[in-house]
Amino acid sequence: MAEALRIALAGVGTVGAGVIRLLSENAALLQARAGRPIRVVAVSARDRGKHRGVDLSRFDWCDDMTEMAARDDVDAVVELVGGADGPALTLARNTIRSGKALVTANKAMIAHHGLALAEAAEAAGVPLKFEAAVAGGIPVIKGLREGAAANLIDKVQGILNGTCNFILSTMEDTGRDFADVLAEAQAKGFAEADPTLDIEGIDAGHKLAILAAIAFGSRLDLDHVSCEGIARVRAADIARARDLGFVIRLIGEADVEPDGSASRLLQRVRPCLVPDNHPLAHVDGPTNAVVAEGNFSGRLLFQGAGAGDGPTASAVVADLIDIARGERGSPFSVPVAQLEPMAPAEPGDRRGHTYIRFTVADRPGVLAEITAAMRDAEVSIESLIQTGQAEESGEVLVAMVTHEGPERCVTEALRLLDGSPSLTAPPLVMPILAA
Amino acid sequence: MAEALRIALAGVGTVGAGVIRLLSENAALLQARAGRPIRVVAVSARDRGKHRGVDLSRFDWCDDMTEMAARDDVDAVVELVGGADGPALTLARNTIRSGKALVTANKAMIAHHGLALAEAAEAAGVPLKFEAAVAGGIPVIKGLREGAAANLIDKVQGILNGTCNFILSTMEDTGRDFADVLAEAQAKGFAEADPTLDIEGIDAGHKLAILAAIAFGSRLDLDHVSCEGIARVRAADIARARDLGFVIRLIGEADVEPDGSASRLLQRVRPCLVPDNHPLAHVDGPTNAVVAEGNFSGRLLFQGAGAGDGPTASAVVADLIDIARGERGSPFSVPVAQLEPMAPAEPGDRRGHTYIRFTVADRPGVLAEITAAMRDAEVSIESLIQTGQAEESGEVLVAMVTHEGPERCVTEALRLLDGSPSLTAPPLVMPILAA
Repeated sequence: MAEALRIALAGVGTVGAGVIRLLSENAALLQARAGRPIRVVAVSARDRGKHRGVDLSRFDWCDDMTEMAARDDVDAVVELVGGADGPALTLARNTIRSGKALVTANKAMIAHHGLALAEAAEAAGVPLKFEAAVAGGIPVIKGLREGAAANLIDKVQGILNGTCNFILSTMEDTGRDFADVLAEAQAKGFAEADPTLDIEGIDAGHKLAILAAIAFGSRLDLDHVSCEGIARVRAADIARARDLGFVIRLIGEADVEPDGSASRLLQRVRPCLVPDNHPLAHVDGPTNAVVAEGNFSGRLLFQGAGAGDGPTASAVVADLIDIARGERGSPFSVPVAQLEPMAPAEPGDRRGHTYIRFTVADRPGVLAEITAAMRDAEVSIESLIQTGQAEESGEVLVAMVTHEGPERCVTEALRLLDGSPSLTAPPLVMPILAA
Repeated sequence: MAEALRIALAGVGTVGAGVIRLLSENAALLQARAGRPIRVVAVSARDRGKHRGVDLSRFDWCDDMTEMAARDDVDAVVELVGGADGPALTLARNTIRSGKALVTANKAMIAHHGLALAEAAEAAGVPLKFEAAVAGGIPVIKGLREGAAANLIDKVQGILNGTCNFILSTMEDTGRDFADVLAEAQAKGFAEADPTLDIEGIDAGHKLAILAAIAFGSRLDLDHVSCEGIARVRAADIARARDLGFVIRLIGEADVEPDGSASRLLQRVRPCLVPDNHPLAHVDGPTNAVVAEGNFSGRLLFQGAGAGDGPTASAVVADLIDIARGERGSPFSVPVAQLEPMAPAEPGDRRGHTYIRFTVADRPGVLAEITAAMRDAEVSIESLIQTGQAEESGEVLVAMVTHEGPERCVTEALRLLDGSPSLTAPPLVMPILAA
């Protein structure tokens, strides 16, 4: 029998416990598929006494996780600690420097330091793998890096944050408002006590930046991911969108536009209206999904559970099987030195339909003021819904969908209205995805 | 620069021409991702003079494709000839025997001879890859073999034939009947002149058998795939299904059931009613999709173009990139000797809701006869629709949905009604997929 791949596991929370369970429950098939056993030899976590539902006594306990990288009896380190910097990053660097393989589920660390880590891993000739960092159990990094490798990909779109998708689809199903559903999600443990990273789109932005680099062969560029969250989406927006044949989802979208001999990269996370015939329209609850458009494959969709101990463990162990089977190759599909540095694209000329919802004072002339601004900015209105009834707050909502036109006109219209006393809150602008 | 991976291409129809175009158009990125160029050196096809939109004069022409395997200047052979046996199989065997890698899009050959070819490839230590044989451009073989490799998978379901899905979704959109839509599809080149392999579910059966072997680690068993086609589905069935909240799709479904220490394998292709909240309900036109249920990943969905020159070329070249990068490993995920021989499962105890549509004579007592048979077979009826109006033929359609119950009761009810003069045609039975 071939020698085991020996693992050190840093972080034994729910995902780490899931990895231990998976390696044990599916041991026979893992050995058949990997060609050798995969065996945990050492673990490290903050609290040794915590009950995790798995027996850790079989493994060596390390008080200082960053020292696991130096162990002679370890071939690969699995980092499940989290955090872009700190001990996770130290461990990652030490692991690669020690000539060991690194597997991580840490999207923040890869989004911030992925290029440097990949360069170090390439120089050391060791695998660096992070399937679990994006879209939980969905093998989308493999799907783009290898499955769609023959394609020039010019667009990726995804539902990349399960918490936001759960909140939006629950709002859709129940008609309840954001704050109410968020509180319930927090009470049930579906959302963090501090939900900022999720609901502001930052977590989705980390994942989008990683996907874009792999899909486009562009240098990972987290600094130019614009993120807008879902906190301002109201139940009324969802209801209006539905009347028009759309659902609202937090979409991470990246694309490449040619600019002479170079290319420009646009990366945005924001709530969008998704038409019923778009594959992302049917992604409900905590499910994640990624769409990629290849120049030969056409549109590909990968969908599954975006989080949770089982799905994340599935992705972590898939990486371990690849390592056990000797899979090498660049973490970002091509060597870091060959990733193309792409300047950020300016979206102003992008054309599309846009949903704009104004929160206005209930008095005469408001609609005239809004529509005049639209006219002056050359935004053509396709449909407009003003519900006669004021909200409890005395506010009235005016929602409109524009004809297809450049984004900069919408921006200009909003600029014209900026500071208007007719608007009681900043307008909510959501693009409408093309089918 | 690393040496090129040198390719011989057998079969230059639309897919072969697509492979040549892809290798040329995407050459720079292929080299970056594969770590070396991928270069066609020789081609073979039936008709040298045929116009294909690609320049073949750069390549050596081989009159006898089976001799390409012996060329010293070739590292990998791409077989795009088709046919389970004949020249394709001879070429495949010769290629492996000559110690060269084989890439094929030939689902019939893999379904019939995949185990023997994989055994030969394993013995010779050469890659055998067939991503393009299942679901066109969707990297689902990679997705199951590697992406979901950490999981015990106990079910796969898929829309595996684009022609059938195009016909069914066109019937759905237009209300037209099967023969009419098939004729149009044939006229437009979406369906073959002899559509038997597609519309009888045989092509989907080939793909299902391949997927099942990879997903379950079971010995590929084409002999026990039951196939039922779509020719008997009427526009009226689609309309009734829609009223009940379902669409009708040709579904290939395989699962594994435990049987003591062994397992049993059930593989079936048949039209099914798919509920709106099932991911396969939103797969329209020639799109394909595969769902797999892993014990840790949960449900995964892979979706994309099921056929066409671009998508198929994308899958073929993904295999070539893997080969260029040195990816080895068992064609069926585990060595053939380790695939578990699974006896076919008996479906009689399977429980589910079933749609049954009778074509009956328009006279009194028919409904009583049918419902009595249901009662005697212990089939409980959840809903029943008899349209008052007779079809042009003088027939009346009676459609019902059963409560959840074992399949054998439905079989028994139909046996009781077999030969009844009340029925003017055999009943159409379609299972209802669970969400």
